[in-house]
Amino acid sequence: MLEKFQNHLLHNFPFLNGKKLLLATSGGIDSMVMVHLFLQLNYKIAIAHCNFQLRGLESFDDQNFVQDYAAAKDVPVFITQFDAKAFAEDYKLSTQVAARELRYNWFYELLETEKYDYILTAHHADDNLETFLINLSRGTGLDGLTGIPAQNERVMRPLLALSQQEIEKYAELNAVHWREDSSNASDKYLRNQIRHHLLPMFKELNPNFQTSFQKTQRYLQEAASMVEDATIMIYQQVASQEEESIKFDIKQLKKLPNYKSYLYQWLNEFGFTAWDDIYDLVQSQSGKQVFSAEYRLLKDRDFLIVVPLDLEKEKQEYFIEKDQKEVKIPLKLAFHKAATLSSVSNKTIFVDSNKLQYPLVLRHWEEGDQFQPFGMNGKSKKISKLFKDEKLSLLDKENTWLLCSNKSIVWVIGIRQDERFKIENTTQNILKIELEE
Amino acid sequence: MLEKFQNHLLHNFPFLNGKKLLLATSGGIDSMVMVHLFLQLNYKIAIAHCNFQLRGLESFDDQNFVQDYAAAKDVPVFITQFDAKAFAEDYKLSTQVAARELRYNWFYELLETEKYDYILTAHHADDNLETFLINLSRGTGLDGLTGIPAQNERVMRPLLALSQQEIEKYAELNAVHWREDSSNASDKYLRNQIRHHLLPMFKELNPNFQTSFQKTQRYLQEAASMVEDATIMIYQQVASQEEESIKFDIKQLKKLPNYKSYLYQWLNEFGFTAWDDIYDLVQSQSGKQVFSAEYRLLKDRDFLIVVPLDLEKEKQEYFIEKDQKEVKIPLKLAFHKAATLSSVSNKTIFVDSNKLQYPLVLRHWEEGDQFQPFGMNGKSKKISKLFKDEKLSLLDKENTWLLCSNKSIVWVIGIRQDERFKIENTTQNILKIELEE
Repeated sequence: MLEKFQNHLLHNFPFLNGKKLLLATSGGIDSMVMVHLFLQLNYKIAIAHCNFQLRGLESFDDQNFVQDYAAAKDVPVFITQFDAKAFAEDYKLSTQVAARELRYNWFYELLETEKYDYILTAHHADDNLETFLINLSRGTGLDGLTGIPAQNERVMRPLLALSQQEIEKYAELNAVHWREDSSNASDKYLRNQIRHHLLPMFKELNPNFQTSFQKTQRYLQEAASMVEDATIMIYQQVASQEEESIKFDIKQLKKLPNYKSYLYQWLNEFGFTAWDDIYDLVQSQSGKQVFSAEYRLLKDRDFLIVVPLDLEKEKQEYFIEKDQKEVKIPLKLAFHKAATLSSVSNKTIFVDSNKLQYPLVLRHWEEGDQFQPFGMNGKSKKISKLFKDEKLSLLDKENTWLLCSNKSIVWVIGIRQDERFKIENTTQNILKIELEE
Repeated sequence: MLEKFQNHLLHNFPFLNGKKLLLATSGGIDSMVMVHLFLQLNYKIAIAHCNFQLRGLESFDDQNFVQDYAAAKDVPVFITQFDAKAFAEDYKLSTQVAARELRYNWFYELLETEKYDYILTAHHADDNLETFLINLSRGTGLDGLTGIPAQNERVMRPLLALSQQEIEKYAELNAVHWREDSSNASDKYLRNQIRHHLLPMFKELNPNFQTSFQKTQRYLQEAASMVEDATIMIYQQVASQEEESIKFDIKQLKKLPNYKSYLYQWLNEFGFTAWDDIYDLVQSQSGKQVFSAEYRLLKDRDFLIVVPLDLEKEKQEYFIEKDQKEVKIPLKLAFHKAATLSSVSNKTIFVDSNKLQYPLVLRHWEEGDQFQPFGMNGKSKKISKLFKDEKLSLLDKENTWLLCSNKSIVWVIGIRQDERFKIENTTQNILKIELEE
């Protein structure tokens, strides 16, 4: 058995030899067999154990067991404790997802700080099969059926092709000690149902079910890699990146009979979940939006645009004091005293300094804002109307800054200045304000 | 129940109204419910029944049942009889696959000859679920898990979203008569196992399993459509069509880490099955081949080439009689008497007519062929060596024609003429032979 496992390892993971390996070790049979195997082979290993404090004292017994084992074998050991339950509640995650999140984050951190090359976990073939059937029973997409990968950047799963039975046999033949693994406790009932009832049924239908299943999963993994290719190739055809936002060309998109599938693939990553609303957005009028926790998806004429939520942005206000020469954030403005008025443009205005009330304020547009556009003899105009006349996109509107004096708008920056602050014959102090880019 | 079925139909298949529909009717509960439903709705239907003669007299009883029903309801009926077993044996198919092949071929024929718009079959949701689980138990790829489509060009499956239970209830409430459906007999045991043992297990794990499963299958169908997109897009990048053969650029192909998946998708259609040999071909030396029943896959330098098998080609011989002025097949040659020798080229030669023995023969190269190249003072050279020196691809070699007089090669057409037939001082009759393109 030892020999079989060793051969499997040398054949499928030859590159692990000589590398510094961090073995994720719960103390259960799977991980203790993995540790035993790598010790036998004299690989450079360390043990990493997470105590999630999910089962009171038992969790600490697990921790002690692993710690003692490492000491006895003279293997470096890293231990950490997490309050997985609290983390799960804070982030509204299932305990299992929370534990996985905490565990892998810590592993990756250890790789960096302790200079290890790979994390190794002890997942085996039955884990994959059981997860497949759990996901199938709950309803899933292709990704829920492709299984956990044997190799994935810096995480290696050297036992993944081996069955639970083989691992149990190895443990028995090599007198490996372990403690009952509690990490899968939350779906233990489900796994037991599958192991003792569902799997035997499949094996009755096909005595070679396990082998057939591995083929099935390999085919599905191939399909998933092709889905990924398509997702990337179509993205390149219909999407474009602009600073922090991503624009999808709806006209291009709609040429694809299955464009919803692609939208799902792309937008899933941004945490969107309201798929029906998103699919409606494609047909809906400009200006409608759908939100995820950190992004919004905006229908803007012929485009769908993903924009990071910047919740402070709308309330952002910046103050400019008297005699201040320049502003650098949120945009660059320069203030100079001027003797006369010269070359006015969208980017340069001249105002009567004495009419201003300090501090001036830089802020975004709000519903109801109005001003008196320069050259309109004091007629008022709504900022929303100005934006419309200027054919600004929704994003442009939101990104436009207003320079205000008290409640009055002095300048819709880059677009139009206000009549009330203009230079007149009586003006004594001229202030030149320039937008720099 | 009737109302529910009608609404389902009107909502999901509105375009069937007013069309001429051919209802595939075995006489079993599913198809008889379908016929009943469409009769209630006063749609324009006809019944099509295949008697596969798989269960002796019972098959004829089914046929009579359907025929009598159609007569009683005054519905046009088409009946055919197939020897499905013999067909299966002839084509080395399973009886089920043979029956399906025969059935659909006949349906499509009826559409044409009898001017019907659509074929309707009575597949229901449980058929899909059972097929999914059968395929999963046996091992399968994505296509084995996506289910039968509800709409597929000219085949419609209006009951596909409905469960067996609903169909049984409909039959009961509407007093529909039927005969036990024998078409699934061959995997009846398997289906029963699944229906009575496997499905209840899944429903215990998740009471909403049926609904979840329909979602799963929809997601998998979406994935399959994206796989198809990728297959087409990558094909356009690496493949090119040349007359009847398709060339795959191996250098381009190997840039893809998952190129084997694509080769599978493309070559599967040509009936190839020896996948390991095919994947080896990518790395192997030029000249190796893998065969399917009707094609061969040829490694030719940096290309994999799919070529239709033309078994007669190698033995093709064409005869040219004395005084014949031209040849049109397999290539165009023109024969003229000439007074003098002029402008010799790859495409035009002059030979001493008196040295020829008629009929001349046009044939392909065979192993061992040799000739005396013009200008080499009567030295012999193997045709294989000539091809190699000319750097001909395998396909070019096979497509090259030899013009022969008795056993001797007169002209390796388009490449080199033979010394023995050349014009000499003693020549009395000059024959000019031109290759036209």
